Amino acid sequence: MALYTIVMAGGRGERFWPLSTSKIPKPFIPLLGSNSLLQETVVRMQPLVPLERILISIGKEHEEIARRQLPQVPADNFIIEPVGRDTSACLGFCALHIDQRDPDATLLALPADHFIGDGDAYLKTIQKGIENLEGATAVVFGITPRRAETGYGYILAEKPSVRADAWPVIRFIEKPDAPTAERYVASGNYFWNSGMFLWNNHTLLKLFAALMPETYKGLCALRPLIGKSATDARMTEIFASLPRISIDYGIMEKSSGLRLIPAEFAWDDIGNWASLERALAPDALGNIAQGSHVSLDSNGCIIYAQSETIAAFGVSNLVVVQAYGKVLVCSKDKAADLKRLVTALGPQEG
Amino acid sequence: MALYTIVMAGGRGERFWPLSTSKIPKPFIPLLGSNSLLQETVVRMQPLVPLERILISIGKEHEEIARRQLPQVPADNFIIEPVGRDTSACLGFCALHIDQRDPDATLLALPADHFIGDGDAYLKTIQKGIENLEGATAVVFGITPRRAETGYGYILAEKPSVRADAWPVIRFIEKPDAPTAERYVASGNYFWNSGMFLWNNHTLLKLFAALMPETYKGLCALRPLIGKSATDARMTEIFASLPRISIDYGIMEKSSGLRLIPAEFAWDDIGNWASLERALAPDALGNIAQGSHVSLDSNGCIIYAQSETIAAFGVSNLVVVQAYGKVLVCSKDKAADLKRLVTALGPQEG
Repeated sequence: MALYTIVMAGGRGERFWPLSTSKIPKPFIPLLGSNSLLQETVVRMQPLVPLERILISIGKEHEEIARRQLPQVPADNFIIEPVGRDTSACLGFCALHIDQRDPDATLLALPADHFIGDGDAYLKTIQKGIENLEGATAVVFGITPRRAETGYGYILAEKPSVRADAWPVIRFIEKPDAPTAERYVASGNYFWNSGMFLWNNHTLLKLFAALMPETYKGLCALRPLIGKSATDARMTEIFASLPRISIDYGIMEKSSGLRLIPAEFAWDDIGNWASLERALAPDALGNIAQGSHVSLDSNGCIIYAQSETIAAFGVSNLVVVQAYGKVLVCSKDKAADLKRLVTALGPQEG
Repeated sequence: MALYTIVMAGGRGERFWPLSTSKIPKPFIPLLGSNSLLQETVVRMQPLVPLERILISIGKEHEEIARRQLPQVPADNFIIEPVGRDTSACLGFCALHIDQRDPDATLLALPADHFIGDGDAYLKTIQKGIENLEGATAVVFGITPRRAETGYGYILAEKPSVRADAWPVIRFIEKPDAPTAERYVASGNYFWNSGMFLWNNHTLLKLFAALMPETYKGLCALRPLIGKSATDARMTEIFASLPRISIDYGIMEKSSGLRLIPAEFAWDDIGNWASLERALAPDALGNIAQGSHVSLDSNGCIIYAQSETIAAFGVSNLVVVQAYGKVLVCSKDKAADLKRLVTALGPQEG
């Protein structure tokens, strides 16, 4: 029952423009330090899983940057998708690969672009998940909500009557409106869906067969093509025919027998520049800055300088980013809406 | 009575950081278009004065950039100061040079770093000055004040009783406080001192002899050294001994018989980034931008991109400047105080 980790390095480019673009999406940018989020995700797992069992799932347009960022990962562990079809196709395809290597494997799926506050607590939480997988359809990892966030999905779980690590999952819940989110935070039984899941690999394949038969049929057709290049015409054709559905919607929401492990680490999906405030420590004036910078009479700003020096003077609550020949100056409350700006900039920027 | 023009390209670097620095002060930056302010000043004069009679007064540390920016100006017309001693020394030294070329010359002194709104009206105003110089000690050019500016010096003049272009000057006035400036604007007899002056060259040398005897003594000692390099030890020694006094304070304020020509052109000394609003046309949202830029939901900003693209999103009343590997983000009301930031940045920036 060896543990395999799938690091899912998909994702878009608009939210962290100009540091991220469609060519260099969020997992590949060094948002929280000198390592990219993808690199941090791999390094964070290494104490628990040897590199031989860490697989990187990426689109073929990002194969080169992924291999360059992760020279320590074995070449065969990059699972390249010819075309993206959301996390169900991604994880189904990875499950096929793992099934070839070890039919009794356990599969841990991890998004590559989240903030994790404490690596030790993170591994401890995952360890608890592994210990509670037997007898469950899957284990999910839930984050105790710290605010009435309307941008995340939630999971309702039942507090175990005896002292236990795992909470039986009642149901998955789509992004709520604000009053509902308030109620969720107050209740104590609702968790943020971290997008981290654990299955026995053969269970996951069975779930595809039962709950996503169209995808499963595609996976069966893909099985003999494993080892071929992602540019293979037949592989591309099959992949393109798979429905574009998330694993949450396609499988998790329809599964019974799920268990939830409450996370013991700080977590954020860092969805845009403004959310860096929840992941990085501010200075005395509440500014968060990376790279070469000076600020004077400025507070509440998020400053990211890739190669130039940013000087902020007498400004508040701004996002200022310099990267790849572009400078973004954005009010913090517009950061979540950055796609509008990228659209205005035109197609070469997205 | 040939007209010589002295373009005074002194000036500091802090006010337009990071585009201007001590190495590339304000006259040498392309603040209002593709030409530098110095280049614009020379081009603006050319219809009235041939290049052979346009002299460029600069410190020796800026000789190279000045010659590079003005290849059309004859090499001998760059008057290099070994050390800066304000405008009295600058103009005295230039007057010596002109005296050698043409003892009957007229000297027009022009700052190299101001905004002039209308080149034709400017030349017409200067032409009126030339026509009114005979019988006067000097002609000064006054700007009708458009606001109660406390950052400029004023000139009080007497409205001529008959219809005439020249107003007799009553006196020069230092920078006033706000209520006084309000009164000046309301009166109609106060003008902003543009720093543009016109003398017969021999009259100016006589004024030095009478009103600035110490400087005049230095000028007499400098006369036989004309033609030597600005690195000449004796020249440097004499220059360093000259008092650091402006021509306004040293001569103009003490002179009688001055006449003022009211300017017929828009003028601004563009003292800092925020004053670009008075020199350049804003877009529909009141943003002023040069270089590659996009703005969305942003108003009242001043954007200057030297080599990168600046994107402004949901911001107001900011100065955003990218130049020479630096990015400035500054509230518009702090722009006049930019020296504080440059000081905080350390000596290599000033």
